[in-house]
Amino acid sequence: MEKAEIGLIGLGTMGSNLALNIAEKGHRIAVYNRTPSRTDDFIAKAGDLAGRIVPCESLADLAAAIRPPRPIIIMVLAGSPVDEQIAALRGELAANDIIIDAGNANFRDTMRRFKELEGSGLTFIGMGVSGGEEGARHGPSIMVGGKEESWRRVEGVLTAISAKFKGEPCAAWLGPDGAGHFVKTIHNGIEYADMQMIAEIYGILRDGLGMAAKEIAPVFAEWNKGRLNSYLIEITAEVLKADDAKTGKPVVDIILDRAGQKGTGKWSVIEAQQLGIPATAIEAAVAARVLSSIKNERLAAEKVYGGGVARIAAPRDELLKDLELALFAGKIAAYAQGFAVMAGASKEFGWNLPMPTIAKIWRAGCIIRSQMLDTMAEAFGSGDAATNLLMAPAFVTMMQQAHPALRRVVARAVEAGAPVPALSSALAYFDSYRQGRGTSNLIQAQRDFFGAHGFERIDEAGAFHGPWG
Amino acid sequence: MEKAEIGLIGLGTMGSNLALNIAEKGHRIAVYNRTPSRTDDFIAKAGDLAGRIVPCESLADLAAAIRPPRPIIIMVLAGSPVDEQIAALRGELAANDIIIDAGNANFRDTMRRFKELEGSGLTFIGMGVSGGEEGARHGPSIMVGGKEESWRRVEGVLTAISAKFKGEPCAAWLGPDGAGHFVKTIHNGIEYADMQMIAEIYGILRDGLGMAAKEIAPVFAEWNKGRLNSYLIEITAEVLKADDAKTGKPVVDIILDRAGQKGTGKWSVIEAQQLGIPATAIEAAVAARVLSSIKNERLAAEKVYGGGVARIAAPRDELLKDLELALFAGKIAAYAQGFAVMAGASKEFGWNLPMPTIAKIWRAGCIIRSQMLDTMAEAFGSGDAATNLLMAPAFVTMMQQAHPALRRVVARAVEAGAPVPALSSALAYFDSYRQGRGTSNLIQAQRDFFGAHGFERIDEAGAFHGPWG
Repeated sequence: MEKAEIGLIGLGTMGSNLALNIAEKGHRIAVYNRTPSRTDDFIAKAGDLAGRIVPCESLADLAAAIRPPRPIIIMVLAGSPVDEQIAALRGELAANDIIIDAGNANFRDTMRRFKELEGSGLTFIGMGVSGGEEGARHGPSIMVGGKEESWRRVEGVLTAISAKFKGEPCAAWLGPDGAGHFVKTIHNGIEYADMQMIAEIYGILRDGLGMAAKEIAPVFAEWNKGRLNSYLIEITAEVLKADDAKTGKPVVDIILDRAGQKGTGKWSVIEAQQLGIPATAIEAAVAARVLSSIKNERLAAEKVYGGGVARIAAPRDELLKDLELALFAGKIAAYAQGFAVMAGASKEFGWNLPMPTIAKIWRAGCIIRSQMLDTMAEAFGSGDAATNLLMAPAFVTMMQQAHPALRRVVARAVEAGAPVPALSSALAYFDSYRQGRGTSNLIQAQRDFFGAHGFERIDEAGAFHGPWG
Repeated sequence: MEKAEIGLIGLGTMGSNLALNIAEKGHRIAVYNRTPSRTDDFIAKAGDLAGRIVPCESLADLAAAIRPPRPIIIMVLAGSPVDEQIAALRGELAANDIIIDAGNANFRDTMRRFKELEGSGLTFIGMGVSGGEEGARHGPSIMVGGKEESWRRVEGVLTAISAKFKGEPCAAWLGPDGAGHFVKTIHNGIEYADMQMIAEIYGILRDGLGMAAKEIAPVFAEWNKGRLNSYLIEITAEVLKADDAKTGKPVVDIILDRAGQKGTGKWSVIEAQQLGIPATAIEAAVAARVLSSIKNERLAAEKVYGGGVARIAAPRDELLKDLELALFAGKIAAYAQGFAVMAGASKEFGWNLPMPTIAKIWRAGCIIRSQMLDTMAEAFGSGDAATNLLMAPAFVTMMQQAHPALRRVVARAVEAGAPVPALSSALAYFDSYRQGRGTSNLIQAQRDFFGAHGFERIDEAGAFHGPWG
């Protein structure tokens, strides 16, 4: 029997969809699931594609079915199940085989696993996959970390199944060991900020302007045709216009305002802190989800403080224009933070992350895909040694135009009582970043006063103390 | 020779001052420093107090000089020097002796060290000390973690040397193992937020109102007589009125706006994230210090964006009143976050942290000492089961009065272009906290749309999906 090109373990939603995607693109794939009935169900539903799928009843069968060196994708729950799967699989593999963890692993686990396999002859790839179920089935964005030679073995399959942006595959090798999973983590952190800023704008429309979901939907649909064009804006319009079958009301109005999170937002923030890079818009978004989860506390607080948002008096057309620009400016600042965190990690871990490539493979397939990412890919690729996205010429022009609107929107929201944690963090980041002379001279004076920490002077090099000694 | 009550290793600034403080309060203390000449210098400068100080030339001498069970304070650089010191000391000690780490340790190291000494017969105390040099010498705030019986052995000395608030000592046993160092870390995190919010208000006065340092100093001095009464406000007035000897200009005007940090702010934020508790005002303050440190990037950004702050047109008296209340409201929100993080850690690590006691021992000696902490101690002590400081009746009243001013100040600063990262984060936290119906229903709709994560409904229990399936 013809050997399979690749193997896959774990036929949950994501694993099944990835396997079908691989088969559909003409690659023979061997699959294994711990519960054999799930493999049977999968094959039964695979239709025409079943001809290119080899169901295996054991890990030994799986290994035997794949052409060496064998690449095997593991798509199981992140955490210890991955370690258990690796342990079970190792004995069945031979030199140069490649274990690929395609789950949402913490990149520090990926680095550890990479190291643990070193010297065993086997090697490891940590692969971030974004795009949800739909993406896995028809074209995700794929972020690969590992040895470049391992990438060469799987490049054909992975670029074939990935999303395409104007024909360019959204799959790339980004660097050694944890690089792929790190980039996926920051992707998700940016996604948190992006979604939170959209929710804040929605809140202003709903509460500050008193608009119904059905009135808000076309606003986002319209914005999706312009500078904000992106998957998240598109689906925001979609979900806002959808009706609930049970009540006939807009679905968003019957959904409880309690958001879940799975850890990647938090990891982004912790790593940003470890690296000493500000990621305040992502932090604000993570905090907003936490606050959303303590609904009972919020209801109690509303009783004593009032939670109402005042109507915003500005002319609607003018305000809508401002909101569009404000969201755009906020997004730019959040992306600037995310890319700065990746630049910090690249330096810290010696990854040499290719920023233009990252922007490119995020242009399609993944949740944060947008028109702006294409501009970003160009900005990073133009060879300007910009230290921060805010300093890339194309973004300077956009931000110069957009930040006054962000300023007006935050001021109005704050006056009206509408919470804008991510938008105001993004603005504060921008305002701090562009201030040549800040206010931490006062902080240095205080620190020297109480702790004799010393300070630098503006007119002379060295460390000095104040006259309060 | 009479045995010493306690020992101390490490005669740097903090160690020397602590040792003098102990001797001055009538307790005999044995001291050791790795470089013997520093011990000689210390004794030579100790004056009358030298009679109660026993200089030791070796760790064996040190152990022999102390009454068992021996408490020995280690005051060396945080990190591996502490481990090395413990390793060197262990062999000289006997059952029930107590090693006390009084440095700024990460509480996770303290927990590890506590565990490593378990079963050895020796025990460990992780002790947070706040108050800088001055506090160490004349009365710091002392936060102790370890076994309660270890605390009993040192309680006399530590309460004697601690600061007093209306006669009550600012030293207490707060819980097992890492509890003391954790509380000290959050103390420092709150200190970061407190200082940053003061710096933001200073920036509005300097740039938004165009006031000179000498004009701003009396504003803080006046505020120090009212609700903002605190050490940090007091020293802000002091440093603002001080002149530079070299140029004759106000010192703050010749200090470079590049602030340092030593890690406790970052630790606070990382632990808050690990616990899933929002600490956005502290995060904003840590980020502000990082941004202050990239002065060259800021200068470059100012060139393309302009960094100027527009003059704020409001009548000065009215604005000053608002700024005072805004700072007060911002502080309350930052403290609410800090105490919420401690409550989260208390639960996570089973520490049973005594919140009223923590507020009490912060009322004097430490850097964040303030009148507000006395109100806080009462609020926590009144038996109200407030889940958040924002819900304690005394704070509800204060916050109801103060938040409109915070709102006006943030709006004006944002319009003028003055960065207010911590104040705006504090306000966003408050506004999110008091909103019974937030906007994360939209986030849940998006997550269900792209990832089939499901959502809760407002009218029925269970997990549901939208009609987009």
